[in-house]
Amino acid sequence: MERNLFNIYSRDGLARAGQLKLAHGEVQTPAFMPVGTGGAVKGMRSVDVLATGSDILLGNVYHLMLRPGADKIKRLGGLHNFMNWNLPILTDSGGFQVMSLSKIRKIDESGVEFRAHTDGSRYFLSPEESIDIQYKLGSDVTMALDECTSYPMKKETVAESMRRSMRWALRSRKKFRERVGYAIFGIVQGGIYHDLREESVAELKNIGFDGYAIGGLAVGEGQELMLSVLDQLVGHLPKYQPRYLMGVGTPLDIIKAVHKGIDMFDCVLPTRSGRTGRAYTVRAVVNIRNSRHASDPRPLDEMCSCETCQQYSRAYLHHLFRCGEMLGPMLLTNHNLTFYQELMKGLREAIISNNLRVFSEKLISQLEFGDISEL
Amino acid sequence: MERNLFNIYSRDGLARAGQLKLAHGEVQTPAFMPVGTGGAVKGMRSVDVLATGSDILLGNVYHLMLRPGADKIKRLGGLHNFMNWNLPILTDSGGFQVMSLSKIRKIDESGVEFRAHTDGSRYFLSPEESIDIQYKLGSDVTMALDECTSYPMKKETVAESMRRSMRWALRSRKKFRERVGYAIFGIVQGGIYHDLREESVAELKNIGFDGYAIGGLAVGEGQELMLSVLDQLVGHLPKYQPRYLMGVGTPLDIIKAVHKGIDMFDCVLPTRSGRTGRAYTVRAVVNIRNSRHASDPRPLDEMCSCETCQQYSRAYLHHLFRCGEMLGPMLLTNHNLTFYQELMKGLREAIISNNLRVFSEKLISQLEFGDISEL
Repeated sequence: MERNLFNIYSRDGLARAGQLKLAHGEVQTPAFMPVGTGGAVKGMRSVDVLATGSDILLGNVYHLMLRPGADKIKRLGGLHNFMNWNLPILTDSGGFQVMSLSKIRKIDESGVEFRAHTDGSRYFLSPEESIDIQYKLGSDVTMALDECTSYPMKKETVAESMRRSMRWALRSRKKFRERVGYAIFGIVQGGIYHDLREESVAELKNIGFDGYAIGGLAVGEGQELMLSVLDQLVGHLPKYQPRYLMGVGTPLDIIKAVHKGIDMFDCVLPTRSGRTGRAYTVRAVVNIRNSRHASDPRPLDEMCSCETCQQYSRAYLHHLFRCGEMLGPMLLTNHNLTFYQELMKGLREAIISNNLRVFSEKLISQLEFGDISEL
Repeated sequence: MERNLFNIYSRDGLARAGQLKLAHGEVQTPAFMPVGTGGAVKGMRSVDVLATGSDILLGNVYHLMLRPGADKIKRLGGLHNFMNWNLPILTDSGGFQVMSLSKIRKIDESGVEFRAHTDGSRYFLSPEESIDIQYKLGSDVTMALDECTSYPMKKETVAESMRRSMRWALRSRKKFRERVGYAIFGIVQGGIYHDLREESVAELKNIGFDGYAIGGLAVGEGQELMLSVLDQLVGHLPKYQPRYLMGVGTPLDIIKAVHKGIDMFDCVLPTRSGRTGRAYTVRAVVNIRNSRHASDPRPLDEMCSCETCQQYSRAYLHHLFRCGEMLGPMLLTNHNLTFYQELMKGLREAIISNNLRVFSEKLISQLEFGDISEL
């Protein structure tokens, strides 16, 4: 299965364009996965998400085990059926959310005991339990349970945590039930320490996974340090398997990481920014709440073919946010996800036509300008 | 214009089925107008509203004059263009909202001075100003400015208020600019007092309007009293012009008022209820927050063809509300508006086939049961 899951059909430098063949369909890579945390991409019906060009979604073990619970979702026909999304779903194993959202009570070799951020009730998550939950959800891509270290952190602590994550990875892999079209990815940890990252990769390769995720980045270390970790790390990853950079990132992060050979991404930025009135365009990050947009009849982005840009003016969107109308977050989320998916499509096409450098340089110069100003 | 605006093509008892021909299209009556208060039906894109079968929307002078302002909307191409809704729009004149939402500073013959509920700033609204605002918005149906009395209220106070409203109606009518496809409706006031209502109707008929609205009902007097006012009132209204019962109501209210000869309705119930988790079905009002739905794989309403019912289970909708996901309000609003529009369609078809009594009795017995229980 491992060999046939991922087909890289084009390369440009270290970057790759490929297809990930999963039980619920093919994913075109480089891919961006919208975050559907608790069984919904916030403010978007599944048909709307589909219309943005997304072909895979991310769900979270952590949120779904709390509400409504994995057994309930299983009885309701699995996560795909529950949320009316019939294309692939990758589920995060819960490691990151337990660390970032819950109150951890105890973490030891067996797993992690935590209190839910929702109501304080106690839960226990082990590698086996996380894999079992993901099985019940029906995830196309299961993630091994890991501990996600924060930044900055002492090297010994990172090393100890990474080694436990690798032992958990082995337990996750053993618990995973192999079926055609269903994959399990391991997660490389090791913080910003090159030797620890290498050790982690070596362990995961020994175990053998369908894909390799890079965790523990985009946690405050900055783009430069993140990219330097990728520079050092990617060469050690298996050549023919998908590489997933978890929780990343801005359009600039994504472009640069694709250049380093990354195939998959997920991030709350396009959805969360959309809810707070920030819209991505190739020319700038537009804060639609800014009064300069109050009378502007132009769309958010004249280059964009999304429904928001085709049907509504900046003045209208500004008005919606000013009035607290939920339609504002809905429309901006739709635009931002479309922007991200168009970016991925542009990157794929550039790789296929061996034009990635020129395509990216132009885009980066626009985006870097945009990150510090606004049109 | 008055004669050709409204075409009644079928009658069943006092009930009528007709077409209201407006600048932006034809409205099928009996009609329900979703409330798009501040330039948006909450939680719905205009394409979504269209998909529910709505062919006319309601907008509010009060909200739009505060934000973003009528001049701004005019410069942006009018309300239709602003909110991307290309079918007819009826705008309420502001009378009701000034009374119910704002802090009134002064009301006299000239108009009403009030403080906005949004930021406390002062505004003045006269009949002329309201009509001018509606002209700037580009409303297909303009409403005369009235004072909406509350319930209960002393008869002398109601009489005095109604007479001022009638003088305002005359001033509104004079200020209105006649154009093909654009209508102005007068608003009957007089509370629950039959003689005052008759006096009000007589005044409005003297002035001459394209349609006649009944204001000051559904303000706490109860369905029975409301219907008795209609019983007495409707016979005095012009036979060939549209009749609009403002702010009404529940499905039961609407069915019963259609029987009395009412052609048009608006109400926040389907949208507001949708946001709080209450869904209308022919068999019951379903409170989706109720834990009994937590594992229910059935749709909200097995009879319903809306996207929500076709694509999502009660269990999923319950989950969304439990987690505070905005998709929950979006999906329930969509269902409720579809339910209302299907109800109107059913009523129209029943009138056309001279089957209104049988159709309604069956529906009423189901709905009356549903109002006190839940499936």
